[in-house]
Amino acid sequence: MEFLDELRSLKDQIRFNGRFEIPEGTKNVVIAGMGGSGIVGRIFSELYSEIPVSIVDDYRAPDFVGKETLYIAISYSGNTEETIDSVNDAKAKGAITLAITSGGKLAKLADKTVVIPKGLNPRSALGYMLAPLATSFGIAGDKEIDEAYKLLNELDENNEAEKGIAREIYSNESIPVIYGIAPYKAVAYRWKTQFSENAKVLAYSSSFPELNHNDTMSLDGTYRKGEFYFMAFTDGENPKVERRIGITENLTGIGLRRINAKGTSAFARMMWLVHEGDYITFHLAVLRGKNPANVAIIEQLKKELGKQI
Amino acid sequence: MEFLDELRSLKDQIRFNGRFEIPEGTKNVVIAGMGGSGIVGRIFSELYSEIPVSIVDDYRAPDFVGKETLYIAISYSGNTEETIDSVNDAKAKGAITLAITSGGKLAKLADKTVVIPKGLNPRSALGYMLAPLATSFGIAGDKEIDEAYKLLNELDENNEAEKGIAREIYSNESIPVIYGIAPYKAVAYRWKTQFSENAKVLAYSSSFPELNHNDTMSLDGTYRKGEFYFMAFTDGENPKVERRIGITENLTGIGLRRINAKGTSAFARMMWLVHEGDYITFHLAVLRGKNPANVAIIEQLKKELGKQI
Repeated sequence: MEFLDELRSLKDQIRFNGRFEIPEGTKNVVIAGMGGSGIVGRIFSELYSEIPVSIVDDYRAPDFVGKETLYIAISYSGNTEETIDSVNDAKAKGAITLAITSGGKLAKLADKTVVIPKGLNPRSALGYMLAPLATSFGIAGDKEIDEAYKLLNELDENNEAEKGIAREIYSNESIPVIYGIAPYKAVAYRWKTQFSENAKVLAYSSSFPELNHNDTMSLDGTYRKGEFYFMAFTDGENPKVERRIGITENLTGIGLRRINAKGTSAFARMMWLVHEGDYITFHLAVLRGKNPANVAIIEQLKKELGKQI
Repeated sequence: MEFLDELRSLKDQIRFNGRFEIPEGTKNVVIAGMGGSGIVGRIFSELYSEIPVSIVDDYRAPDFVGKETLYIAISYSGNTEETIDSVNDAKAKGAITLAITSGGKLAKLADKTVVIPKGLNPRSALGYMLAPLATSFGIAGDKEIDEAYKLLNELDENNEAEKGIAREIYSNESIPVIYGIAPYKAVAYRWKTQFSENAKVLAYSSSFPELNHNDTMSLDGTYRKGEFYFMAFTDGENPKVERRIGITENLTGIGLRRINAKGTSAFARMMWLVHEGDYITFHLAVLRGKNPANVAIIEQLKKELGKQI
């Protein structure tokens, strides 16, 4: 599939029916995953907190994991080394395990598996991986999904503004910095990872209000001040945080390009923000003459890691 | 107190006796805090996971918070707007609240308070804020604290190597990038914040193995490749991750300056790494002619936020 077609499939992915049952007696949830799969748990955990949700991006499961834990492992390929190790650890600790994957070892390892369609780059399958969580835990219903569908479709049909942002970054060879706000802090991190994987540009994310306790002190006098391209998410819902953004600009003398989330529901806004980042990073890749689908170094690294020593 | 004296007090701070009782029936812990106070919860949560620990760096408490939650609010000043709001939210939800603070509104608001000494910059009081958690939850005993004391003292007496790293960053006006590993991922973030607040230099952190799923793709071909200064923590305990570090260097053509944690216990290594970052950022501030204690913009921002509108 062409990379642009992958991006365009997001709107259909969020309609994927992968609903699963939450086991009775579940007292806490752990979501394990890395990179383009791991981001799904991070995004989900900002919309759902009725029981504690912990994120794992490493080889081990937390000590509390046990019979009352629903341990959800997300790996598009199903063969992510860290995630598989952590599921084995979780099983040994007595957890009920659920995999969201297109196949691989994980599909056989977990107690239950939600099988999602194959054939995409993992980072382009965010919708397939998120939809099962969103519907099963009740954070998005038909109304929110329909709203998101419409907004994503609009972006697919017209992403000239996103190309414009990519061009600004390109013209100055800037280091992108993305500042999120709740509940889209993980989306800011998603953009950072998309800048890396799609456009091959190192980027960084942080979030308001936390960054006002540290980055604020360096924005004015840092090395290479003019070489960063600062962006800040807004959604019109959080006047306290929006005042922070304005004051931060005034006190530090940097410009913060606002990314105003479209939509009325948090889920739709979140999907729109994800897709906005998809297009900015896609266009930057094209401008740079880089193939956005290419992740050869990551593949090579996995191969080297797999070698006997 | 002179800033350097503040740094030198860390070894004594970790001996602070602030032990508190964990209420019977506690099923989960939330630690709320921002910036130099918030980092303490993040650091703690990598050493303790017998029950779920959630981190809050915003105005609201998670939905699951209730009678079985021990809600720990850490704010050195006791007047952090976000933390106070979140404690009010936690109290409304029925949580037992505990404050670790030198005073302020928080001392009166929480059900119980561990009062720590006043007079430092919040980011220089990490030991006072961490010690009550470390001893009360049993992650550090006399032996680990004594080991850490000795290592911190050695750094206080000789930090020429740290000055050398600062000089390398200074000579090229580099953007520092700190790559952590478990259980020191939050320490990598601590360094980033110390670069901002002490040296007024924007810096970034991420961690192995997660960064192998994204940053890896941009390290080779990114904008301004030569302008970053990459550092990676190691502790000699994790051969899988250390192989990753070497392979990442080979495949991307960047140099990763190793920061080899000293010490035998995880707690002592963690404290050593924290202090190593303290000194590198302190020396960078001095080289740049910046006052490491100065956080005037953050103070100004708080003042502006406090104004009626």
